[in-house]
Amino acid sequence: MSEKPFDRAALEQLVTQRFFYAPAFQIYGGVAGFYDYGPTGCALMNNIINVWRNHFVLEEEMLELDTTIMNTHDVLKTSGHVDKFADWMCKDLKNGEIFRADHLIEAVLEARLQGDREARGAAQAPVVDDKKKKTKKKKGAVVAVELPEEERQAYEEILAKIDNFGGEELGQIMQKYNIRSPESGNELSPPQEFNLMFESSIGPTGHLKGYLRPETAQGQFLNFKKLLEFNNNKMPFASAQVGRAFRNEISPRSGLLRVREFTMAEIEHYVDPLDKSHAGFADVKDTKIKLLAKDVQLSGKTTIQEMTVGEAVEKKIIDNETLGYFIARIYQFLIKIGIKDEKLRFRQHMDNEMAHYACDCWDAEIQTSYGWIECVGCADRSAYDLTVHSVRTKEKLVVREQLAEPVKVERWQLEINKKTFGPKFKKDAKAVEESMLANTDECFERLAKDLETNGVSKVEANGTTYEVSKDDVKVERVTVTEHVREYTPNVIEPSFGVGRILYSLLEHSWWVREEDEARNVLSFPPSVAPFKCCILPLSNHESFAPFVKKFSRELRKNGVSTRTDDSSTSIGRRYARYDELGIPYAITIDFQTVDDNTVTLRMRDSTKQIRDTFENILKILKEEQ
Amino acid sequence: MSEKPFDRAALEQLVTQRFFYAPAFQIYGGVAGFYDYGPTGCALMNNIINVWRNHFVLEEEMLELDTTIMNTHDVLKTSGHVDKFADWMCKDLKNGEIFRADHLIEAVLEARLQGDREARGAAQAPVVDDKKKKTKKKKGAVVAVELPEEERQAYEEILAKIDNFGGEELGQIMQKYNIRSPESGNELSPPQEFNLMFESSIGPTGHLKGYLRPETAQGQFLNFKKLLEFNNNKMPFASAQVGRAFRNEISPRSGLLRVREFTMAEIEHYVDPLDKSHAGFADVKDTKIKLLAKDVQLSGKTTIQEMTVGEAVEKKIIDNETLGYFIARIYQFLIKIGIKDEKLRFRQHMDNEMAHYACDCWDAEIQTSYGWIECVGCADRSAYDLTVHSVRTKEKLVVREQLAEPVKVERWQLEINKKTFGPKFKKDAKAVEESMLANTDECFERLAKDLETNGVSKVEANGTTYEVSKDDVKVERVTVTEHVREYTPNVIEPSFGVGRILYSLLEHSWWVREEDEARNVLSFPPSVAPFKCCILPLSNHESFAPFVKKFSRELRKNGVSTRTDDSSTSIGRRYARYDELGIPYAITIDFQTVDDNTVTLRMRDSTKQIRDTFENILKILKEEQ
Repeated sequence: MSEKPFDRAALEQLVTQRFFYAPAFQIYGGVAGFYDYGPTGCALMNNIINVWRNHFVLEEEMLELDTTIMNTHDVLKTSGHVDKFADWMCKDLKNGEIFRADHLIEAVLEARLQGDREARGAAQAPVVDDKKKKTKKKKGAVVAVELPEEERQAYEEILAKIDNFGGEELGQIMQKYNIRSPESGNELSPPQEFNLMFESSIGPTGHLKGYLRPETAQGQFLNFKKLLEFNNNKMPFASAQVGRAFRNEISPRSGLLRVREFTMAEIEHYVDPLDKSHAGFADVKDTKIKLLAKDVQLSGKTTIQEMTVGEAVEKKIIDNETLGYFIARIYQFLIKIGIKDEKLRFRQHMDNEMAHYACDCWDAEIQTSYGWIECVGCADRSAYDLTVHSVRTKEKLVVREQLAEPVKVERWQLEINKKTFGPKFKKDAKAVEESMLANTDECFERLAKDLETNGVSKVEANGTTYEVSKDDVKVERVTVTEHVREYTPNVIEPSFGVGRILYSLLEHSWWVREEDEARNVLSFPPSVAPFKCCILPLSNHESFAPFVKKFSRELRKNGVSTRTDDSSTSIGRRYARYDELGIPYAITIDFQTVDDNTVTLRMRDSTKQIRDTFENILKILKEEQ
Repeated sequence: MSEKPFDRAALEQLVTQRFFYAPAFQIYGGVAGFYDYGPTGCALMNNIINVWRNHFVLEEEMLELDTTIMNTHDVLKTSGHVDKFADWMCKDLKNGEIFRADHLIEAVLEARLQGDREARGAAQAPVVDDKKKKTKKKKGAVVAVELPEEERQAYEEILAKIDNFGGEELGQIMQKYNIRSPESGNELSPPQEFNLMFESSIGPTGHLKGYLRPETAQGQFLNFKKLLEFNNNKMPFASAQVGRAFRNEISPRSGLLRVREFTMAEIEHYVDPLDKSHAGFADVKDTKIKLLAKDVQLSGKTTIQEMTVGEAVEKKIIDNETLGYFIARIYQFLIKIGIKDEKLRFRQHMDNEMAHYACDCWDAEIQTSYGWIECVGCADRSAYDLTVHSVRTKEKLVVREQLAEPVKVERWQLEINKKTFGPKFKKDAKAVEESMLANTDECFERLAKDLETNGVSKVEANGTTYEVSKDDVKVERVTVTEHVREYTPNVIEPSFGVGRILYSLLEHSWWVREEDEARNVLSFPPSVAPFKCCILPLSNHESFAPFVKKFSRELRKNGVSTRTDDSSTSIGRRYARYDELGIPYAITIDFQTVDDNTVTLRMRDSTKQIRDTFENILKILKEEQ
């Protein structure tokens, strides 16, 4: 395989020419961040999803769902997306161009640092390049100007912490370091928040606000109660979903890596927070993976540790067996579809870069010409989502576990003084009571303390704040005997960006047959190759037609997807064409076939050919799938 | 199977309890027209789609695409959806309730007709019931009042033509017959147009309007040029797509039958308008189907004609071989997945009920408890879509065919007088010229006539009207010799509503084991059953565990999806549970298994059991798939 620098333009040309994917609405000029998958890309994606479904859903009897893409405002308000799923943008005050603030600062500061290095005659690699934002497009023009030492240090510090900053801090940085619109040089507006969800409205009144889901997870959480019932109340278990999600990116870029509409495959594994062991862990614990843990990154290094998952869990680098189990299974899946082991690592998120719902997260990162790309996230969402939906809807989203022996537990008890409570809160009485009952332990503690210290406390219900006094309620810690344990499960979520995986796979599978006038090959494993086999009659001579028909029917019957090509193009050029589609096998039909029913099987990667009867060739293909 | 009246409530209970599907956001109260598919429904749908993909896409080497759900305003303006994809709604002027005008009129008039029948003591079936709108929910309360004969006739005529009326006519009917809000009795607003597309905006500026696609077809048409190239310029060929589509229905109803978000599977078969023969027609022409042709319906009858597709094409009931081919293939597909032959018919659209793009259309209608439901449309969209997109984008969406012999053809020729044209139209000159060049033959004829008669003619370009005179252009009919024939293909479109098919299949598959305390069974064919096999150890005794593990692994490896259930529930009750999921086979593991490796295989429909070694049972399962 080629050791030359990666020629992305050549791969892009191949991808376009063989219609793996292309900008959507291209004849209308296209819109950034939207892509259509062509016959090859669509088949490749379907096959990746099939392998995923077999590897995860069927293997582990996960409960696959298909929930709506349109979601209501209420659901996504509760999940936190309405308030927190946003980026900061700023606007060129003269020409109106819009930038994502953090990306813009990165681009400009990196260009200045690069200019500094050039001015000082140093040609080091950029220092921060390997940390997080790998998909940057240099927007700032590089001018060779040396920077004062302290400014250089300040830039590097900003770049290291860029994910940490809110709008105000980004604005301060822009002002302090005079960051302007890179091409026009115009002044920029201060950063404004921009929610990344596509908004719409449901029904003819226009009053019911909806959003396109930014992840498939919420639809799974909303169905938790039904899923648990379906699973005969047995824990742990997982739900799964494959489907479209949407993010209205401010400035989509890097081809399939940052788009506005994409396919995700997500697993929500529900687990007892007190027992995160996993029955399948023993089967995977010897899987060797490359890790880049939080601690290592915090010390400013990017040193990869290679070890087995068992070792990583034992050393507490990976927190628990369930997380370890899924990291190993993600690894196995990616290797199975053709991702290169040496270009795959698991990086732990640092505390400041986690999504609002996550308490721990490991990304499977794949190395591409854009850098290390996050392709799978494996997050511990704790009990966050089930808790917030439960509090909001008053629907219990819990597991009830019959205890072998009753236990005595301490818990908070609320006693309403009916004489004063009803008359005081009137029609709101029920809501105020329910709101207090839904309290967490911390809230109960605060309530009890308030009542004791001040005689009153505030309670939120239906968006209004009420004041309760110690004459209305008694809150105390009591000891009770329980026969049933009730808990909100934690959720471990492996979440796959299928488009990113597909793009990475294209890069890892592509090579050029140098000896043979630069012919492209895409060496997909047969399990994901868009088509498994092509049937190439020597020409469109009529005596070949019945063989084409018979062979393609037999192949299909045996689950081998095929393309036939009876064009008059030479066999050699047709081989080249199907190497570019990544088809692993080609069957050639010639005049000898008509005589003795033998065909030639040609292997994509080695170009080796064997001749045998069709029936024997079929056997080989079935085995190699 | 039961011959009692269909008990829809019982089926709905089963569907909910076994989580085939359920209202989306149910813990938030739900929103009409949105459903989530649970583990059984999702698996059933995936399997239906898999059979579809094998039957159509792989069998015929169709080019499957995966295009964006979000579409731009421009695309859907051109396709006609922005202007024409709308229903008429009216509003209760007091309580604000909103109705779809045509449905409301239907419901009210039918209720009055029913009241009339009751008053006259007749209990006939409603006369119009079998025509088109089968999913009506009676909203008008039935009061036994006899109607004057002429009014009765007027009602029946309105109901027969309801799809024909625009907003003004619907408004007149409402006024003339005093149609009011059925429950409140309040006055209604006149019908207003309501576009059924969900609207959103793309990117941070808010200026780029987008819509969620109402069909997957447009994404396919936009890629026509790339698809033709991918197919080595060979005609005919087909593209296909499975994916989500959205329609913001005014009043969703009838469960899965009229929803706001749904999965479609669509084929666009591109064919030479001069040659609509089909290479595969001979293979399907003996397929016997039930037809309800346009002529029969126009004569006021619903008499089904049963004949072979070959006969129907020969008699010109079905227009051409390609349309006939797809009707036969649709029939085969629906039968394959378990739709009952006696409840399946093909109904031809009448001229007034076709979508704005169609010139002929046959629906596969399936009989359910809601009446005959349109589940697959098979429309001839002619060259409509490719033509309008081509005119709008100036991108040629045509096939170029090398002619064996050059031919002389007459065509219109446009000659610009550069001396006057440029100075007159200045910067708009190019747009005006292009607009004239994109003319159809009819437009050229009109232009030539205008210039000859009046000396001037009007030309639309960029939304402005320009006047050209005979000094600016010469338009004439010329004879030229052509070596290449250039044509816009016609499109035959089989379009499947997967949710509707799935619901119909549930009704057709459901029956009750009367002899055995009313136990539900869903008799899906193994190819689409949500899971193929369940593994039931007699108890959760530890000696069974290794067998469960080994058998489920072996089954999966052979493509047999499984559910295991080691709960302590009795075997009989577990059989009943899995009959309700439609699982065709159950393997029971007992103490004899531990001794001699034999298991019991129990068949869902017959409840017959056989005992054999696991290996032999596996062989049976593989054969029966």
